[in-house]
Amino acid sequence: MASRDGYTWTQDQGLKAGVPCIGAIQPPTNVNSTTPQIFDVVIVGAGYCGLTAARDASLAGLKVLLLEGRDRIGGRSWSSNIGGYPFEMGGTWVYWGQPNVWREIMRYQMQDELELSYDFSKGINQFLLANAEGTQRLTHDEEDAIMESGLRKLVNVDGEFGKIVMPFPHSAAFTPEALQYDKISVAARLAEIKDSLTPNERLGIEAFVLLCSGGTLETTSFFEFLHWWALCEHSYDGCIRYLVKYKFRGGQSSFAIRFFREALATGNLTYAFNSPVARVNDAREGVTITTRDGRTYKALKAISAMPLNVLNAVEFNPPLIRGKKTAADIGHVNQCIKVHAEVRNTELRSYTGISYPHNRLYYALGDGTTPAGNTHIVSFGGQHNHFHPEEDIQVTIQALQGLVPMDIERIVFHNWSKDEFAKGAW
Amino acid sequence: MASRDGYTWTQDQGLKAGVPCIGAIQPPTNVNSTTPQIFDVVIVGAGYCGLTAARDASLAGLKVLLLEGRDRIGGRSWSSNIGGYPFEMGGTWVYWGQPNVWREIMRYQMQDELELSYDFSKGINQFLLANAEGTQRLTHDEEDAIMESGLRKLVNVDGEFGKIVMPFPHSAAFTPEALQYDKISVAARLAEIKDSLTPNERLGIEAFVLLCSGGTLETTSFFEFLHWWALCEHSYDGCIRYLVKYKFRGGQSSFAIRFFREALATGNLTYAFNSPVARVNDAREGVTITTRDGRTYKALKAISAMPLNVLNAVEFNPPLIRGKKTAADIGHVNQCIKVHAEVRNTELRSYTGISYPHNRLYYALGDGTTPAGNTHIVSFGGQHNHFHPEEDIQVTIQALQGLVPMDIERIVFHNWSKDEFAKGAW
Repeated sequence: MASRDGYTWTQDQGLKAGVPCIGAIQPPTNVNSTTPQIFDVVIVGAGYCGLTAARDASLAGLKVLLLEGRDRIGGRSWSSNIGGYPFEMGGTWVYWGQPNVWREIMRYQMQDELELSYDFSKGINQFLLANAEGTQRLTHDEEDAIMESGLRKLVNVDGEFGKIVMPFPHSAAFTPEALQYDKISVAARLAEIKDSLTPNERLGIEAFVLLCSGGTLETTSFFEFLHWWALCEHSYDGCIRYLVKYKFRGGQSSFAIRFFREALATGNLTYAFNSPVARVNDAREGVTITTRDGRTYKALKAISAMPLNVLNAVEFNPPLIRGKKTAADIGHVNQCIKVHAEVRNTELRSYTGISYPHNRLYYALGDGTTPAGNTHIVSFGGQHNHFHPEEDIQVTIQALQGLVPMDIERIVFHNWSKDEFAKGAW
Repeated sequence: MASRDGYTWTQDQGLKAGVPCIGAIQPPTNVNSTTPQIFDVVIVGAGYCGLTAARDASLAGLKVLLLEGRDRIGGRSWSSNIGGYPFEMGGTWVYWGQPNVWREIMRYQMQDELELSYDFSKGINQFLLANAEGTQRLTHDEEDAIMESGLRKLVNVDGEFGKIVMPFPHSAAFTPEALQYDKISVAARLAEIKDSLTPNERLGIEAFVLLCSGGTLETTSFFEFLHWWALCEHSYDGCIRYLVKYKFRGGQSSFAIRFFREALATGNLTYAFNSPVARVNDAREGVTITTRDGRTYKALKAISAMPLNVLNAVEFNPPLIRGKKTAADIGHVNQCIKVHAEVRNTELRSYTGISYPHNRLYYALGDGTTPAGNTHIVSFGGQHNHFHPEEDIQVTIQALQGLVPMDIERIVFHNWSKDEFAKGAW
């Protein structure tokens, strides 16, 4: 199975759109003559949110219709499968401190299907910290020390590294002391503490914040960074555990497919992929959904599981309530660029690096060993120095080489910014 | 509502059995003439395990019978409510790193119903570390330093504080490198590292291990302690977050009652409290359950949610499989004694202390402020210097005073060791 989404590049084959994916669904629809005329619920979007809704509603005995614009499940978390090796195109890492995620992993008994992303026991144990002036070769212990001391200065608004202003990060009832930071960008917070940071700390934490937000320092909410920090145990060590340590051996699509199959096995799920929704009419007697190609579906209720940044591409009648409309108009800032490189340099398995602010890809790490024995490097850019990796592959290669010299066999990526069903990343 | 379980003592009233509890269910049964003759499933035990099974089965449309020996829900996690203030009689603390628990907390939208147990901003910030020779008055920073360095020596079997031998603590597929430690007691591990520990470290970690296990150093599996440590992020800081930091403002019974009410609201739940089960007959045509007072119930399936240590009090026909029978014969070691004291010493709000190995209660902390403005101290003992707190209240008072001098207004506890439906603690 393959999806239209994503790109691969090799020297021989050049740039090609579409990659193999176990989350691409064939046949693309099971609508037939026995399909209900009116569903109990229609769900728009087959990312994890829509898949979970479809599964739970199907299990509860409701007649469910799942509509998805793409040819695959998973939304912004999916994996391509190239030679049996998964490259994570979007959301990747999971952790048992993410309780909703972990509960689902246990539901599908996948707790033994995780592996560690980085492996500092292989190759040359190095952290390359580069700016426009040059590159420092440091150890991972030095990396940890720089990042931890820098981030602690960034978040230390209360003398306890955020623990006082944000003791309960899973609560939606934040204190006024915490909410004031939603008016402040990370750039503004950095200006406040600039005299306390070493040059290396500043370099490290700016790149780390942009890795998290995918925006710019000016568009990244300091509150939201504090929130991530609090969700990660108020520590850099926690950030690593929660954000980049554990991933699925079979890729995110090996997880998402379990939700879809469980829903399908109930016999209550009707689905149609390649079915972008144009219009949602919500009337007293029920909901009518019209796809771009003019098909209509009726249901008693509808669940929108579409990303925020694409809501304005759908006509809602009655219109979205003001708060949701405003949020959709503003959008979220994440325009992350995630580029995988399969490289012949086995010594890079233990590599991590930052190359900022000059380089288009500013954060990277060794993320695995491919079946061919090559090293898999995953790298990140974003709104800061934004680019479209498929537009000029030489620019992409240059951005990779700007992290660390590498002998590239393959490049794999998904351009989230140009993706009409995402218009941004996670 | 009140339960038969638990004890309170005051100077005026003396020792009284039974305490108020919002988890005591009235009427104690809803069995009536319309009750099904044959249930889809009978569930034995109304602790969280049985409650979850009863709720999920009821929601799935099955006809469910829930049988419970006690007059209340919650099993080994329940709270007494005295003057509107909850004293946690058993399991207490919750955390978002406990994914199954947190998922249920979010289900009931209780994420804003948590509070912090300890509060080092009030009273005199002190950690009293006592042995038979005397008491040292230390700060909480000194406490953290002793506990962290001591515990890191205890668990450092691999140079990485257990991270290498137990990287995935939620897995059931442990490595041989980890499983070898199941043959070793904590006492044996302590013998290996005894020359590296300071006297204070040894005192602190022995008391901490016994707080966790409720057994003795000889009966506590070193593997199981490593497992707790790994589940707590491989750090002392994590142990504190996972084990003693966050609790329900309304007590555990305010949580458990949500499960029960949700099950009841389906219309599919029949229940009978005060109904200890004597016999479980599992035959081709279904299961017949007989209570001690001779009532019989029939169901297609049965779920046993009884604690390990009481399985041998029930006649199973056919008998339990060999592994389960062996586990029940051995039992688990936790004979924790948990004693609450409401004391007039407001300066003890910020107190923590260890008094070991001589004292019958060896670990304690300030756990809250009662409506009367008194300080709530929670203290722990176990199989080490075991005693029954209701047998001689003067012995219990002496054990409390052996932690720190206190002016006691009230004592509250549940004797888990004598509890016929638990025969031990969590």
